[in-house]
Amino acid sequence: MNFSSKLLENAVNEFSKLPGVGQKTALRLVLHLLNQPASGVADFTGAVSRLKNEIRFCQVCRNISDLPVCGICSSVKRDRSIICVVEDTRDVMAIENTGQYNGVYHVLGGLISPMDGVGASDLNIESLVDRTASGEVLEVILALSATMEGDTTIFYLYKKLKDRNLKISAIARGIAFGGELEYVDEITLGRSIATRVPYENSLMK
Amino acid sequence: MNFSSKLLENAVNEFSKLPGVGQKTALRLVLHLLNQPASGVADFTGAVSRLKNEIRFCQVCRNISDLPVCGICSSVKRDRSIICVVEDTRDVMAIENTGQYNGVYHVLGGLISPMDGVGASDLNIESLVDRTASGEVLEVILALSATMEGDTTIFYLYKKLKDRNLKISAIARGIAFGGELEYVDEITLGRSIATRVPYENSLMK
Repeated sequence: MNFSSKLLENAVNEFSKLPGVGQKTALRLVLHLLNQPASGVADFTGAVSRLKNEIRFCQVCRNISDLPVCGICSSVKRDRSIICVVEDTRDVMAIENTGQYNGVYHVLGGLISPMDGVGASDLNIESLVDRTASGEVLEVILALSATMEGDTTIFYLYKKLKDRNLKISAIARGIAFGGELEYVDEITLGRSIATRVPYENSLMK
Repeated sequence: MNFSSKLLENAVNEFSKLPGVGQKTALRLVLHLLNQPASGVADFTGAVSRLKNEIRFCQVCRNISDLPVCGICSSVKRDRSIICVVEDTRDVMAIENTGQYNGVYHVLGGLISPMDGVGASDLNIESLVDRTASGEVLEVILALSATMEGDTTIFYLYKKLKDRNLKISAIARGIAFGGELEYVDEITLGRSIATRVPYENSLMK
């Protein structure tokens, strides 16, 4: 693109580094901000700067939190004997939205991905192992994405935790509720046949 | 959404004010920024702040420019007798990319839109009228969007300029090159039949 201003070009380049934002979208977003009052733009940049500079992570579960210990870890209503291991804070939000889970979480902060240079030591794995040492924890649920990175991470965690006196489970994989069989990809469908469950077990308790 | 942190929620809310960005996309963008090094986030917010605070507009055509007079208006190669009137800087970039235009521009900074509270006095219309007063300008091309707001603005500009000794033209409307007739909407197709041109005139000179 042929920009009439270096300032404009810089701002567009910064926006187009964001995931899923190309140059045209970046230009649209930048021109939108430019049309806002100065206070609106200051609010925008201020919120981003503050988030980056003042962000804290829960000392227990490593989820994003404004307090040293997050609301879920400090709640007396949550079952501390079950830990659900997730990739990031979005997964915590997604599982909380289901209303089906009452345990606590552990946020890894990513998945093992040698291609992206992310190894096990870059993730919050040691703190998870430490948490399971207390004897209070009875079950660890591995709720990671059904991708190669997710599977690699699950396998690594399983090896780390299998000698403890713990139940280790992974979230169920298969066809989605409301999914029509003919549109399901063959890997999912094939595996959901191979890992079929007795009908009584498939009913919600 | 149920955020674990007020800082995160604020940043997501600011991002979701951008056009075409919903809460889920905003969260994805914010978490991406959060994973960047502090210097990357500072570059991002700095570029946006600087753009807003240091932005200047060309004194002649009102396009975004780092100099008092933009590169196009100050170029000796451009034909100052033709002014192409456009809505914003994106349109200047789009027309420059065609390589078909060698005149100068005038950027209105918007379109007349009573629904959005934008009147003629909010746009750079007086400065356009002043530019045509010098006698140097022979033609004004109205290159505005084919929307109700565009048509309203064209009509307003036409009334303002028609008594001057000027040729006033509008960019051609019709079916796009490469467009298949059966997929063209009926208004465009109907108008392109009604405003058909002699075959010789439709050839590029």
